[in-house]
Amino acid sequence: MKISVLRLGHRYSRDKRISTHVGLVARAFGANELVMDIWDNHVENSIQKVVEEWGNSFRITFISEWKKFIRGFNGDKIHLTMYGININEIENKLRASKKDKLIIIGGKKVHPDVYNLVDYNVAIGNQPHSEVAALAVFLDRLYKGKELEKEFKGRMKIIPQKRGKRVLRDDT
Amino acid sequence: MKISVLRLGHRYSRDKRISTHVGLVARAFGANELVMDIWDNHVENSIQKVVEEWGNSFRITFISEWKKFIRGFNGDKIHLTMYGININEIENKLRASKKDKLIIIGGKKVHPDVYNLVDYNVAIGNQPHSEVAALAVFLDRLYKGKELEKEFKGRMKIIPQKRGKRVLRDDT
Repeated sequence: MKISVLRLGHRYSRDKRISTHVGLVARAFGANELVMDIWDNHVENSIQKVVEEWGNSFRITFISEWKKFIRGFNGDKIHLTMYGININEIENKLRASKKDKLIIIGGKKVHPDVYNLVDYNVAIGNQPHSEVAALAVFLDRLYKGKELEKEFKGRMKIIPQKRGKRVLRDDT
Repeated sequence: MKISVLRLGHRYSRDKRISTHVGLVARAFGANELVMDIWDNHVENSIQKVVEEWGNSFRITFISEWKKFIRGFNGDKIHLTMYGININEIENKLRASKKDKLIIIGGKKVHPDVYNLVDYNVAIGNQPHSEVAALAVFLDRLYKGKELEKEFKGRMKIIPQKRGKRVLRDDT
């Protein structure tokens, strides 16, 4: 199962770090690529740097026509929104499908068409919080926590510790 | 069980939105207060506005001596860090304790003392991602998802929909 995360409506200065966090969460929680409808070098560079040091393949793609992209996607299309159905009600159904998944994360104002172009509008609770949090919890539920045990074959590798930090660095 | 979230090392311009997201996630995922060691009006106002519109009590507090604060906290002290023990290994143990919890979220560079002042250093996976994501997944695991069904008694209330948005607004 391949997972793509589509970040819509990024605003340069304001969303720089939020979109970077969205990308890093996508990677760390097992998604295969981040797709954005607005290009931002800063976001791309920050994520690429992490990929280079910490490993595994993760793609960042730019698209100009997001509606066409959503329509053309072959798999389950899931929009994360506080207005949708609570994840607690539909996670089993979503997990049961082995199709590829497109997870759509909007910015402050999401185009109303998004709600109708997708198969599911899913709420990580119906309170305002964060698209970064919504994506993380969604992927954690989808993979039942197994994504956090995945091996990343990077130059940098953490050896988990009860106290302090231990990082292995392989520059060969 | 009362939950406090301590956000350490906030940097004004750079972390404005990240710290706001940390606060909103704390509130939406069932924590009782956000404590910061660096005051930022913008962060406070953004969170207060959400509390006023969407309900329930949520406190934002400023402290000047974070070491004293951590030492004096009566309950389980948990530092979320990518260098710690994987949440998958210790979530059952953490959930079994009914003590109040202090959850510590660091910025880019965490003071090394933090690792020794706490009871647990917990990793939401050992890959770099986001403090916002880490906090959300931690609270989601701690409450086993029940936090997303909690009633918030606010002026604004979402009626979950399969398509589109439905918000009730009570201005009485």
